[in-house]
Amino acid sequence: RRLLPLFLGLFQGALLLFFALFVTYDEPSAEDTDLASRVYSTFPFFQDIQVMLVVGLGLLLSFLPRYGFSALTHNFLLLNFSVQWALVLQGLLHHFRHGHIHLDLHKLLISEFAAVTVLISVGAILGRASPCQLLVMATCEIPVYLASEWLIVTRLGVLDVGGTITIHVFSCYFGLGVSKALFRAAQQPLHPKETPTPSSDLVSLVGTLILWVFWPSFVAVLCQPGDAQHRAILNTLLAMSASAITIMVASSLLERDGKLSPGHLQNGSLAGGVAIGVVADMAVPPVASLALGSLAAVVCVLGFRFLTPLLRRKLTLHDQCGIHNLHGLPGILGAAASVVAILVTSKDTSGSQPSQLSPVGGNASEVVARQWGARGVGGQALCQAAGLAVATGASLLAGLLTGAALRLPCLARPPERLCFDDSLYFKIQDQVESPGPDSSAEEGALALKE
Amino acid sequence: RRLLPLFLGLFQGALLLFFALFVTYDEPSAEDTDLASRVYSTFPFFQDIQVMLVVGLGLLLSFLPRYGFSALTHNFLLLNFSVQWALVLQGLLHHFRHGHIHLDLHKLLISEFAAVTVLISVGAILGRASPCQLLVMATCEIPVYLASEWLIVTRLGVLDVGGTITIHVFSCYFGLGVSKALFRAAQQPLHPKETPTPSSDLVSLVGTLILWVFWPSFVAVLCQPGDAQHRAILNTLLAMSASAITIMVASSLLERDGKLSPGHLQNGSLAGGVAIGVVADMAVPPVASLALGSLAAVVCVLGFRFLTPLLRRKLTLHDQCGIHNLHGLPGILGAAASVVAILVTSKDTSGSQPSQLSPVGGNASEVVARQWGARGVGGQALCQAAGLAVATGASLLAGLLTGAALRLPCLARPPERLCFDDSLYFKIQDQVESPGPDSSAEEGALALKE
Amino acid sequence: RRLLPLFLGLFQGALLLFFALFVTYDEPSAEDTDLASRVYSTFPFFQDIQVMLVVGLGLLLSFLPRYGFSALTHNFLLLNFSVQWALVLQGLLHHFRHGHIHLDLHKLLISEFAAVTVLISVGAILGRASPCQLLVMATCEIPVYLASEWLIVTRLGVLDVGGTITIHVFSCYFGLGVSKALFRAAQQPLHPKETPTPSSDLVSLVGTLILWVFWPSFVAVLCQPGDAQHRAILNTLLAMSASAITIMVASSLLERDGKLSPGHLQNGSLAGGVAIGVVADMAVPPVASLALGSLAAVVCVLGFRFLTPLLRRKLTLHDQCGIHNLHGLPGILGAAASVVAILVTSKDTSGSQPSQLSPVGGNASEVVARQWGARGVGGQALCQAAGLAVATGASLLAGLLTGAALRLPCLARPPERLCFDDSLYFKIQDQVESPGPDSSAEEGALALKE
Repeated sequence: RRLLPLFLGLFQGALLLFFALFVTYDEPSAEDTDLASRVYSTFPFFQDIQVMLVVGLGLLLSFLPRYGFSALTHNFLLLNFSVQWALVLQGLLHHFRHGHIHLDLHKLLISEFAAVTVLISVGAILGRASPCQLLVMATCEIPVYLASEWLIVTRLGVLDVGGTITIHVFSCYFGLGVSKALFRAAQQPLHPKETPTPSSDLVSLVGTLILWVFWPSFVAVLCQPGDAQHRAILNTLLAMSASAITIMVASSLLERDGKLSPGHLQNGSLAGGVAIGVVADMAVPPVASLALGSLAAVVCVLGFRFLTPLLRRKLTLHDQCGIHNLHGLPGILGAAASVVAILVTSKDTSGSQPSQLSPVGGNASEVVARQWGARGVGGQALCQAAGLAVATGASLLAGLLTGAALRLPCLARPPERLCFDDSLYFKIQDQVESPGPDSSAEEGALALKE
Repeated sequence: RRLLPLFLGLFQGALLLFFALFVTYDEPSAEDTDLASRVYSTFPFFQDIQVMLVVGLGLLLSFLPRYGFSALTHNFLLLNFSVQWALVLQGLLHHFRHGHIHLDLHKLLISEFAAVTVLISVGAILGRASPCQLLVMATCEIPVYLASEWLIVTRLGVLDVGGTITIHVFSCYFGLGVSKALFRAAQQPLHPKETPTPSSDLVSLVGTLILWVFWPSFVAVLCQPGDAQHRAILNTLLAMSASAITIMVASSLLERDGKLSPGHLQNGSLAGGVAIGVVADMAVPPVASLALGSLAAVVCVLGFRFLTPLLRRKLTLHDQCGIHNLHGLPGILGAAASVVAILVTSKDTSGSQPSQLSPVGGNASEVVARQWGARGVGGQALCQAAGLAVATGASLLAGLLTGAALRLPCLARPPERLCFDDSLYFKIQDQVESPGPDSSAEEGALALKE
Repeated sequence: RRLLPLFLGLFQGALLLFFALFVTYDEPSAEDTDLASRVYSTFPFFQDIQVMLVVGLGLLLSFLPRYGFSALTHNFLLLNFSVQWALVLQGLLHHFRHGHIHLDLHKLLISEFAAVTVLISVGAILGRASPCQLLVMATCEIPVYLASEWLIVTRLGVLDVGGTITIHVFSCYFGLGVSKALFRAAQQPLHPKETPTPSSDLVSLVGTLILWVFWPSFVAVLCQPGDAQHRAILNTLLAMSASAITIMVASSLLERDGKLSPGHLQNGSLAGGVAIGVVADMAVPPVASLALGSLAAVVCVLGFRFLTPLLRRKLTLHDQCGIHNLHGLPGILGAAASVVAILVTSKDTSGSQPSQLSPVGGNASEVVARQWGARGVGGQALCQAAGLAVATGASLLAGLLTGAALRLPCLARPPERLCFDDSLYFKIQDQVESPGPDSSAEEGALALKE
C-alpha cells in the first residue's frame, strides 16, 4: 500500500476544496500606498525566515552523512504541509467571518511560525521515522500548537515576541514526548551511519551559520515597527554574538583534550537566539542580552555533555539532534529571564508604563497593555511562568499521545538496520558499496508498503 | 587558437567603447527622497534575483558529479555576458534619446531578465558544449529574445508579469532547437560521468531550495506596488507550496518501488513558479494558484517520465536538464491558465474593469488597459494565445538556426569522451584517478585550440 | 594550559562589565516612524553584509580540503570577537558622552566594518596559525584600524565610501606584515594538505559567488540615500560584472594550456568590487566603473601569476590566500582611480560643486565639503594619495609588530606537520585514515597546551 502519496494526495484535494469554498484575497482598496509600504517592510523579513527554514534548517539537519537528501527533503515537505494545514486550521478557528477568509502575507507568516514547531520536533526522531510518521506527527502537532498559542498569548497575555515559549519550548517537549512514546524503553545503540563525517559536519555548520545570520529577522518580524523592532534586532544580535563566543569557551573547557566538538558549535551558537526571543523587545539593557546569550550557550553545552546522556540512560529518552539542549533548556532560561526582566524593569522605570515593555504588536498590544495594567507587574511575571508551564505540560502530553499513534504498523517505521539512509526513500546511487541483494529487496518491499 | 579569450576580450573592448560614447547616469535631481524610496523598494528584490541566478541556478545545474565547477562558472560567465549584451542592445533599440542612455537599476533588471533566457536554454546542452559555443548561443539568443518580448508584450499587449511566456516558454524552445540542430540525429548514449552521485544530488537540491525560496521576488519585482504586487507574492507562494507537495505524490506514484527520484524533486518543486508567472498579479482566487501549482508539478513529472524518453527516441532530441519539463510544459499550462483567468475573471466582475487584472506595471499599464478596453475580453484571451504561439515558433526557429551555427568547427565542441568533466576547462586536480597520458594531451590540445 | 578558553572567557567577562557600566539603548522617542523607516532602509543591507562575512567569506576560505571546518569556525569566531572589541573601543574613543554609550544599528555596522579588516588579514596566514594567535592578532589590529580610519577619514577627509583604502589596503598590508614577522625567512614548502580538491574548490567558488552577489550592499550601505546610493549600487554592479568576464580572459591567456585556474576565478571575480569602493558614489561615468573593474581583474591575475611567486622567492613573504592580489593591488588601483576621478570630474563640472562627488554620508558630508571647499580639487586629490600612504605604512608597521608578538611560544603555533588540518582543533572523524598513534598523542598535547 502506498500510504504516503495517498495521504498527501487526499490532503491536497481537501485543501483545494477548502480554499475554493472559503478563501479569497482582500478586495483591492484605495489606500494602495499603505499596503505597498507594508509589503516592503514585511517581505524582506519573510524571505529571510524562508531562507532560514528551507535552506538553513535543512542543512543543519544534514549532519547524518548518508541521510542528507532525506533531511533536506523531509524538512521541505513538512514545512509546506504544515503551513497549508495551519492555514486551514487558522481559517476555521479564528478568521471565519462573513463566510470568507481573507488571505494576506501576515496570515502566511503566522502559519509559517506554526510550521516551525513541527520542524523542530522532528529533530528528536530524525533518521528513525518514515515520512508517513512525520506527516501524522505534523497533523497532530499543528492544532495542539494553535490551541496552546491561543491559550498562552491571547488568554494569559504572555509576552513572547520571538516565540521562545510558544514555539521553542513547546516544540521541544512535544518532540521529546513523541520520541519517548515511539521508542519506549528500547535502547538505541549507536548506528554505524549515525556518525557525522567531516563533509557532513561542514554542511551542517553552513546551515548553522545561515540560521545565525537571519535569526534577528525571525525574532523581530512581528514586533511593532520603530523602537521596539530596532531594540529586538539589537538584542538578538548581541545575544547571538555572545553565544558564538561563549560556546567555544564552554565546549573547549568541557572536552578533556581541549578540542571543540562540531555538534556543540552547530547548536550552541544558536542558543542565544532561542533564549532572547521572549525578552527581545522589552526595555532590557544591552548587557542583559549579552549575559543571556552567554548563559544560554553554557546551558546548551552542559546539556549535551551531561543531561542528554543522563536522559538516555535513566529514561531511555532518545534525542537525535539534541533539541532539548538547543530549544528546551535555553527556552526555559529565556522564560525565567522574562520574569526577571518584568520585575526589574518595572521597578526601574517605576512609572509602571507597560507600553515600554512593548508587547507583541498589532491590535494585541492594547489588549495586553490593558491586561497588564489590570494585573500589575507581579501578575504579569506570574503569567510568564504560567505560560511556560502550559507550554511544557501540554506539549509533553500531546507528544506522548502522538508518539503512541505513530506506532501504528501501517505507518511503516523503518527497521533499525535501514535507518539513517537516503536510499530507503530516494533513487540515489549508493555511496560506498551496493547493499546485499536481500537488503535491497527488503527496502523495496518496505517502501512499497508505504 | 584561443578563441574564448579573444572573443570575450573583443566584447569587453566594444562594451567599453559603447559605454564611453553613449551611457551616462541620470543627472542628480531634486526629488532625491523619491529615488531613495524606489531604491529601497526595488533593491531587495534585485538582490534576491541575483542570488537565484548566480547561486541557486548554478547549484541546481551542478548535479553532474564531475562538472560542478564548470556548471557554476559557465552559468556565472553567461549571466554577466548576457546582461552586458542586453544592456547594449536595449540601449541601441529602445532608449536612444538625445544621444545618451540613462542607466538605472530598472534597466539593469530588465537586462537581467533577458539573461535568464540564456541560462535556461543552456540546460538542454549542459556538459556537451564548449564555453565558446555557449557564448555564441548567448550572442544569438539575446537579440531574438528582445525582439520577441517587444512583439509579445508591447505590440500584442500580452499580460505576463512573471515572464512565463516571454522567458520560460521562449528559452525552453530556443534551447531545444539548439540541441536538435547541434546534435542532429546522433543518439547520445548514457555517459559514465552523467549519473549524479549522492553528494552532487544534494548540492543540486540546495540550489532548488534557494530558487524556491526567492521565486516570489522574481515574479513580483515588476508588478505595480501595492495590491497587485502583494497578490503576486501570495499567488506565487501558494503555487510553489502546492508544487512542492504534489511533486512528492506524483513522483512516488510513478516509480514502481515508490521511491522518489531526486531529479523530479529538483525540478518539479519549481514548476508551480514557472506556471504562475503569467497570472500572478491577476485577480484569480487563491484556489486557482494552488490548483495551477499542483497541475504544473504533475505535468512536469509526467514529462520526465514519458515525454522526454519519447522525444529522445522518436526525435533524437537531447534535453540534458529536462528544461522542457520544467519550463516548457508548465509554461504552456500557465499560458492556458491565463486565457481561462481572463475569460472567467471578467465575467465575475462583469463591470469589465480591465485595471483589476492589473497589468505589467509602470507606463505600460495604461497602454495595455486602453488596448484591452478596445479589444474586449475575448480579444485579450486571443492575444495571450497568440503570444504563446509567437514565443514557441520564433524561439524554435531561432534555436535551430543558432544550433546549426554552433556546429562550426572553430567553436571546439568537446569530443564525447571528454564531456561532463571539469578538467577539460579548469586546472582542477583529478577526482578519482589521473587520466591516461594521451587523454590529457588531447585535452590540452583541445583547450588550446579554443 | 588552556589559553584559548581563558582568553575568550576573560574577554567576555570584561565585555559584560563594560556593557553593564556604560552601554544603553536610546530612549524610545516620539518620532518612531522615522526610526522605523531607517530600520527598513538599513537592515536589509546589514543582513546582506552579515551573509557575506559569515557565509560567503567563510566558504571562500574553505578551499583547503581538510581545513574547511576550521576556516569557517575561525572566521565566525573572529568576526564576533572583533565586532565586540570594536564596539568597546569605539565606545571608549568616540562615543563617550554623558557617561553612557547609546547603541544602535549604525554603530554595530561600523564595528562590523572594523571586523572585516581582521577577516581579510587572516588570509595571509590561514592554516598555519593557532586560534590563540588569530585572537591576539585581532586584539592588536582593531585599535590600529580605528586610529588609522580616524586619521584617514576624519582628519585627512579622504573620500572612501566602500572602504577600499581604509579597509582593503589597510588589512592587506597588516596581514602581510604579520606573515613576514611570524614566519621570517623560513621557506614554507608546499604542504601536502594545501592543494585544493575539486570539492573544496567548488565550496570556495560558492563562497565567491555569495560575496559577488552581495558586494553592492557592502559598498552602498553607508552612502547618502537617494542619488549617491543609487549610483554606488550601479557602479559596483558594473565593476563586478566587468571583473567576472575579464578574469576569464586574463586567466586563460596567462596559463599555457588555456585552462582556467580556480584560484584566479575565486579571487579575481571580486577584484572589481575592491577597487570600485573608493569611487563608487562619485559622479564617475559608467564606463569608468567598467574599465576599473576590468583593470582590477587583470591586476589581480598578474599578481597571482608573477608577483606572489616573486615575493615568496625574494622576500620569503608567505601569502596563503593571495590577499595582496585581491585586496592590495586592486585597492591601490582604486585609490589611484579616485585621484583621477577627483581631478577629471571637477574639471568637467567646472562649477566646482564638491557636493556632486557626494561624500561619505551623514554629518561627515558637510565637514568634508567644507574641507574640500577650503583645500580645492588638487588638495583633495593629494589627500587621497596621503590616505593611501597612511593606510599602507601604518598597517605594515603595526603588522610587523603584531607578527613578532605572535611568535610568543605560549600562543602555540602548530608545527608544520600538523598544519592545514581540522583534526588539530576539532573532534572530527579523520577523513582518509587515522594518523599514527604518536601523531595523535602529539596533537592532543599541543591542543591541551593551548
